[in-house]
Amino acid sequence: MRAGPSQEEVRRHNLGTLLRYVHVHGATSRAELTSRLGLNRSTIGALTADLISAGLVSEAVPNRIHRAGRPSLVVRPESGRIYAYALSIEVDRLRAARIGLGGRILEQYETERPPGMTAEDAVRPLARYVRAMRTGVPDDARCVGTGLAVAGMVRGEDGMVRLSPPAGRIQEPAGAALRAELGDLGRLTAGNHADVCALAEHARGAAVGCDNVIYLYGDAGVGAGIVAGGRRVTGHGGYGGEVGHMVVNPYGRPCGCGSRGCWETEIGEHALLRLAGRTGDSGREAVLGVVESAQRGDSQAQHAMRQVGDWLGFGVGNLVNIFNPEVVIFGGTLRDVYLGAAAQIRSRLNGVGLAACREHVRLRTPELGPDAGLIGAAELAFEHLLGDPLLS
Amino acid sequence: MRAGPSQEEVRRHNLGTLLRYVHVHGATSRAELTSRLGLNRSTIGALTADLISAGLVSEAVPNRIHRAGRPSLVVRPESGRIYAYALSIEVDRLRAARIGLGGRILEQYETERPPGMTAEDAVRPLARYVRAMRTGVPDDARCVGTGLAVAGMVRGEDGMVRLSPPAGRIQEPAGAALRAELGDLGRLTAGNHADVCALAEHARGAAVGCDNVIYLYGDAGVGAGIVAGGRRVTGHGGYGGEVGHMVVNPYGRPCGCGSRGCWETEIGEHALLRLAGRTGDSGREAVLGVVESAQRGDSQAQHAMRQVGDWLGFGVGNLVNIFNPEVVIFGGTLRDVYLGAAAQIRSRLNGVGLAACREHVRLRTPELGPDAGLIGAAELAFEHLLGDPLLS
Repeated sequence: MRAGPSQEEVRRHNLGTLLRYVHVHGATSRAELTSRLGLNRSTIGALTADLISAGLVSEAVPNRIHRAGRPSLVVRPESGRIYAYALSIEVDRLRAARIGLGGRILEQYETERPPGMTAEDAVRPLARYVRAMRTGVPDDARCVGTGLAVAGMVRGEDGMVRLSPPAGRIQEPAGAALRAELGDLGRLTAGNHADVCALAEHARGAAVGCDNVIYLYGDAGVGAGIVAGGRRVTGHGGYGGEVGHMVVNPYGRPCGCGSRGCWETEIGEHALLRLAGRTGDSGREAVLGVVESAQRGDSQAQHAMRQVGDWLGFGVGNLVNIFNPEVVIFGGTLRDVYLGAAAQIRSRLNGVGLAACREHVRLRTPELGPDAGLIGAAELAFEHLLGDPLLS
Repeated sequence: MRAGPSQEEVRRHNLGTLLRYVHVHGATSRAELTSRLGLNRSTIGALTADLISAGLVSEAVPNRIHRAGRPSLVVRPESGRIYAYALSIEVDRLRAARIGLGGRILEQYETERPPGMTAEDAVRPLARYVRAMRTGVPDDARCVGTGLAVAGMVRGEDGMVRLSPPAGRIQEPAGAALRAELGDLGRLTAGNHADVCALAEHARGAAVGCDNVIYLYGDAGVGAGIVAGGRRVTGHGGYGGEVGHMVVNPYGRPCGCGSRGCWETEIGEHALLRLAGRTGDSGREAVLGVVESAQRGDSQAQHAMRQVGDWLGFGVGNLVNIFNPEVVIFGGTLRDVYLGAAAQIRSRLNGVGLAACREHVRLRTPELGPDAGLIGAAELAFEHLLGDPLLS
């Protein structure tokens, strides 16, 4: 147990709060900061001066003046100078970006991830992109760290990836491999793909202002990023949120994890494609194909959508009873399934979810596009800076 | 978004930290407080003086002196003067207590809750106990509030109870009824029975020092109190933790909530007694009867234990994949089932739980006895005082 902050810690906390505000909301006038942060004008002035001298924000007269009197100076994040590397190992894509404070993507690369490429091997092309980006970084810019998102179970502190088949017993030191490729990385923070998407939607997307959020992400597998009481739920080792391995059908099919009837065996893309009679296909395009066929009246595709939508609503009902969230966001292939079977999903959710737990829940699609994983990975990297802006 | 604390808020935070320390750990020397709280001696002295003048702690020379030199004064919570009322509406018991700061039960009453008695009606005998306790309160004692634990879904702010059959649509204003009976109650805070038991075990029992905890409580129904990252997970309206209504068997029996195959239909006491061929029985004694019969070799009881143990391990596996907890605690009738079927439960948990999520999880029984609901309800009431000790 530790006692409360000292006066110096209070100042640092306030610096973090101000910096986080402009990081999330973009350029903000001093007047608005004063009213939003509940601090007086002179404190805002002093904090801003500190952040300017640390090179984290700049201040300028606003372009347009809306009312009489001296205009309030506008504080903006130094997006061109303060940046993080964001890396995202997704099921079929690899993405890398340099992202400026404020969430601005300064430069970005992406490529396919060939089937069968391990997370450890995926590090090599990502490192190549980082080396390429390094050559274009201005001399006065500063890297605050690297965020690594992985479609799979990953430990936050060191990027150790656990594979689900067979049941997470195989470990791949993706973080260590990245460090071996690149030498100095700065601080590395890793997170599960769904977790970082939840973070991104919570900061800048469909869950802004919500304290209790479930972000579901589907492709071949299914995972969730969960925010409860305003904070990410990651569990003891950081491996929580594996809702795809919540068993919903004890008499169902074997799952790659070694168990049977896991949620992802009923709502993952393989289930949809199998039910639609398209066993050879895979990937998001194939899922979209089924959704569109169903809309055009193809009865087998409609059956597949009904079936998967039903299991999707079923599992969401379970999660709603456990978390009583304000919003559930459907990402990845589950976005397409949600849009094609919303009524079915809502109906099953209403059957499984208790009235008290579900009555205020909104079902949403993500507001951020395919860059959500990168934006969320950068949020992981910025977290340390925002927690204590003057710490190196 | 709010900025950080002022200097005065820091002091209040430190006062709360010190008070919480002696509330949880009991009498503590100034020397130990200095080292545990990371504050210097003079700060500890000043904070203690503030808490003494507020009547919240007292200070004395320790009874036994272990080493040479001037003995460090011992700070202890004013358990006889600062108290809360704790009320617990359990499935078949009603309990009321006056509990002193530090968690000391000063006086306590309990009675049976007759079958069919609503939470709203249960308020009347509880109010009678409170009136009786009021007559014995010393003149200089101070009530900091009332905590109300309810076996059922309840809203924290006002004690509105939601009934699960049919699916939480019926509301019972238990908090308002209590206020109508007693007039001035002080601040009322309500919580679900499993939630407050989790709080009690986290503060003083089997989960001390654990940041990720699932406390399962079973009787006719099943609920959970969940702590993630050191904080209770209650959800948007406070109705989360309804793990008993996680559907585990979509082809299972109808549940009172209107759904089918909810976890509580497979692991609640009715399931165990039905499988053991004791349909007419109910209650904890009847459950213990089955556990003991199984131990004595009764094959139908053994079958029932295997079956229920299997479903218990199954659902725990699901929760472990979602929360990656350090400890799972089995309370109520689930304690007896756990003790009678631990190997079965662990084996099924190992099959359903991913290695990464379950490898560090410990399965435990509660350390606190039948008073856990009362102790947890008092923790709810003390929470406000500990958050800001000088706020009247």
